[in-house]
Amino acid sequence: MDSKRTQHTFSRGGHTLVVPTKLFKENREKLCQKLRENKKVPQGSIVILQGGEADTRYCSDHEPLFRQESYFHWAFGVEEPDFYGAIEVDTGRAILFPPKLPDSYAVWMGKLQTEEDFKVRYGVEEVHWALQISQIICNKKPSLLLTLRGQNSDSGKHSREAVFDGIGEFKVDNKLLHPEIAECRVFKSDLELEVLRYANRISSDAHKQVMRQIRPGMYEYQLESLFHHYCSFHGGLRLLAYTCVCGSGENGAVLHYGHAGAPNAKQINDGDICLLDMGGEYYCYASDITCSYPANGKFTPKQRAIYETVLKANRAVMAAVKAGVSWVDMHLLANRVHLEELKKLGLVQGDVDEMMKVHLGAVFMPHGLGHFMGCDTHDVGGYPEGTERSDKPGLKSLRTVRELKPRMVLTIEPGIYFIDVLLDQALQNPEQAPFLNREVIDTYRGFGGVRIEDNIVVREDGMELLTCVPRTVEEIEALMEDGRKLHHQQLLPQEMGKPTM
Amino acid sequence: MDSKRTQHTFSRGGHTLVVPTKLFKENREKLCQKLRENKKVPQGSIVILQGGEADTRYCSDHEPLFRQESYFHWAFGVEEPDFYGAIEVDTGRAILFPPKLPDSYAVWMGKLQTEEDFKVRYGVEEVHWALQISQIICNKKPSLLLTLRGQNSDSGKHSREAVFDGIGEFKVDNKLLHPEIAECRVFKSDLELEVLRYANRISSDAHKQVMRQIRPGMYEYQLESLFHHYCSFHGGLRLLAYTCVCGSGENGAVLHYGHAGAPNAKQINDGDICLLDMGGEYYCYASDITCSYPANGKFTPKQRAIYETVLKANRAVMAAVKAGVSWVDMHLLANRVHLEELKKLGLVQGDVDEMMKVHLGAVFMPHGLGHFMGCDTHDVGGYPEGTERSDKPGLKSLRTVRELKPRMVLTIEPGIYFIDVLLDQALQNPEQAPFLNREVIDTYRGFGGVRIEDNIVVREDGMELLTCVPRTVEEIEALMEDGRKLHHQQLLPQEMGKPTM
Ligand SMILES: [Mn+2]
Ligand SMILES: [Mn+2]
Repeated sequence: MDSKRTQHTFSRGGHTLVVPTKLFKENREKLCQKLRENKKVPQGSIVILQGGEADTRYCSDHEPLFRQESYFHWAFGVEEPDFYGAIEVDTGRAILFPPKLPDSYAVWMGKLQTEEDFKVRYGVEEVHWALQISQIICNKKPSLLLTLRGQNSDSGKHSREAVFDGIGEFKVDNKLLHPEIAECRVFKSDLELEVLRYANRISSDAHKQVMRQIRPGMYEYQLESLFHHYCSFHGGLRLLAYTCVCGSGENGAVLHYGHAGAPNAKQINDGDICLLDMGGEYYCYASDITCSYPANGKFTPKQRAIYETVLKANRAVMAAVKAGVSWVDMHLLANRVHLEELKKLGLVQGDVDEMMKVHLGAVFMPHGLGHFMGCDTHDVGGYPEGTERSDKPGLKSLRTVRELKPRMVLTIEPGIYFIDVLLDQALQNPEQAPFLNREVIDTYRGFGGVRIEDNIVVREDGMELLTCVPRTVEEIEALMEDGRKLHHQQLLPQEMGKPTM
Repeated sequence: MDSKRTQHTFSRGGHTLVVPTKLFKENREKLCQKLRENKKVPQGSIVILQGGEADTRYCSDHEPLFRQESYFHWAFGVEEPDFYGAIEVDTGRAILFPPKLPDSYAVWMGKLQTEEDFKVRYGVEEVHWALQISQIICNKKPSLLLTLRGQNSDSGKHSREAVFDGIGEFKVDNKLLHPEIAECRVFKSDLELEVLRYANRISSDAHKQVMRQIRPGMYEYQLESLFHHYCSFHGGLRLLAYTCVCGSGENGAVLHYGHAGAPNAKQINDGDICLLDMGGEYYCYASDITCSYPANGKFTPKQRAIYETVLKANRAVMAAVKAGVSWVDMHLLANRVHLEELKKLGLVQGDVDEMMKVHLGAVFMPHGLGHFMGCDTHDVGGYPEGTERSDKPGLKSLRTVRELKPRMVLTIEPGIYFIDVLLDQALQNPEQAPFLNREVIDTYRGFGGVRIEDNIVVREDGMELLTCVPRTVEEIEALMEDGRKLHHQQLLPQEMGKPTM
């Protein structure tokens, strides 16, 4: 009754990517191998994961569209709520436990799926109803159940370990699994990279479509709407990876713009530069792309100067990224390029090495250079045991401090923002103020911000770029010029006069 | 930094509806009046509500877009999370308690709003930071705090009453408020009706846009995407009121189609009839509209027969609805019209009164005729004290059994579905089987379903229709024919060949 999955695959139609369930089998095998190498994990251990649960909004019966918990997705690729999953560490055998729906649900949900249906659909070795989990696991006589408990380094929240009636009868360890599975998620398989490439390609194309259609007079949320529609209609990306940040003009300097309190509701002015951070997800694999450009299609000299500064940092990092490089060094490299260029532009003055010592880069880029990306936009594994978060400006916002290795997927997203509160702090900071040229900086207040965010895969000798959007000023202006010819005859709703009721 | 609200209004731009904060002031006044009439509520009582809280997805830092809790929205119209609100029952004075964000948040959130900003924006008498709530309320020396605890009759869940540090020092009643505020929400004010009209107008236009663009070969989710894009781009309806149900062919008979396990992923065939249940919301006021029509723009004789049967029921109910009428009687009226027409078509046989006695209508329409609609799609107040849910087929699914009164807003949504499990049950039921013509019914298996859902306001002498979409076969075919000329030259993504990576 839905996307029939008789061939162990996921897709959203002939024009979209086909993903084999083998992706998840490989993930499970990688996890089992790591656990078998862990001396603390005894023979006969079984991993137990609990999937996301269906919920309704507050006390109402409104059901938000379910999105699987990312660890569970990574291990099983299950689309529906209320599953459990188990993996026998010794053999890699996977067992899924779907909820048994009452027969009466067939009226509301269509033909109910059988255990065999789920077995075929998700390519696992066994399927039993969730109510049987205790008995089925008991029959396997496990030496130890491994459940998932550990802290997410981005949210500070802890994953909720699996619980079921009867788990008290088993020996359970909730600490061994988390670091191992998080570490597995850091390194993407070939099949995972295919999905990430696809999500990036569609999201890149969606950005290009927005670039063609944008014009002054639009509202920021109309760009979000164009983007989401393209992702879904053209690529089957029903969900976006995160809430769109569509900051125009000074809103470009509000790093968390787009949320409910700042809902992309401003009308875009002629002369505004826009910072558009938008990405879709496909089968729970994310993309995270930011494009920055003037709404009217022509960079002013100031906009070009800041844009090309950020682009230079973005490209310098790309040229330097390869296995063995430290991500902290990449962050510092971006800051150095920013400061060198801002010096040429007259916003800062003095010796760049001295500026670096007083963290002047963080005045203009308070966030980290980038982050892991995978099933979550801010993916896990950024701070494994033995690593520590810095307390220095800018560096403290880094979502990882790791040395890069092949198959890591990251965003590279340098940005320069003119944030009054940070500029004012810096101008009052005796260590930083001497480097700042207040008169020139003041002419940039209200500018907003520029961020250039690409997604990459680390390779032994370099990197693979997943994102494909116009990046030079010339490329952007050319595409926008093409777009104006195609799309700008049509009136916008706001140009058709007031609503008549 | 966001939609500047210096004039006590909400809007999403010049082409969208302007909603004054007076709407919520009136809601609060209505509530206070009812509470003052309640002899159990002493002088000096204060209502305390807690708004929805910001949360992240599972253990990650992914922030789903916040949507306010509906009671809190109804009372205050606050867009952001983590507020408290209080209302002095004697005077109607409203006090909001926003969370105090640390100064450092200005870097991420833009200029932080002051208490005065919120006071202006939401048109309330006082604003204090949430941390001060205990002290501020204490200073008012309330005789009783009224918190919200009660069961939602659609979900069975209970609303979560407000809690704050220090509430233990007050006398609290958590039962008096719920029935009173739920009853207030049932009757919509003029200002609320304006918002509901607007959400319905935009959503109706969005349905028409889908009607113009649909064609065989599309995927169901592409219709969802077209609909959402129209609502957002043209009307500023960023959120939909509920997950789109886009059932084509036999999926039209799956009442809860569209969720994560059945994600509108089927390709639409030539000959399919589509059942599209989609509605947007504006400022947390819903619309809920279903259109049913053939993907290829031409009804087959069978599709026309079933469609016109449902339309006749829909129109019969509309003609009968007015103050004083029982909603149960409307449900039965729709069933009676269905059965009379199905008899003419030869699907059922015998005496319609006898069919009604054995609930034959519920074989074809297992759901209720409609429901209240407002801040929630399935709005509250359907079963106040003294009313009881029936246990009869069909009737047990009714979301209200009330007598209609002016200013109630409801959906009228009769439907006929060919659901194998229900048909098979009925054919084996000795009471029902004699009325069923198996041979004819069998020719309709796999048909899917037809639902025609409109939103209305009950008036003293009748009703106001909020929905405006083509409803007769002729109107629908004409609009679809126009659409084909406009839109069908353009290739669909799935017609452009496989993705090249
Ligand atoms: Mn990012
Ligand atoms: Mn409805």
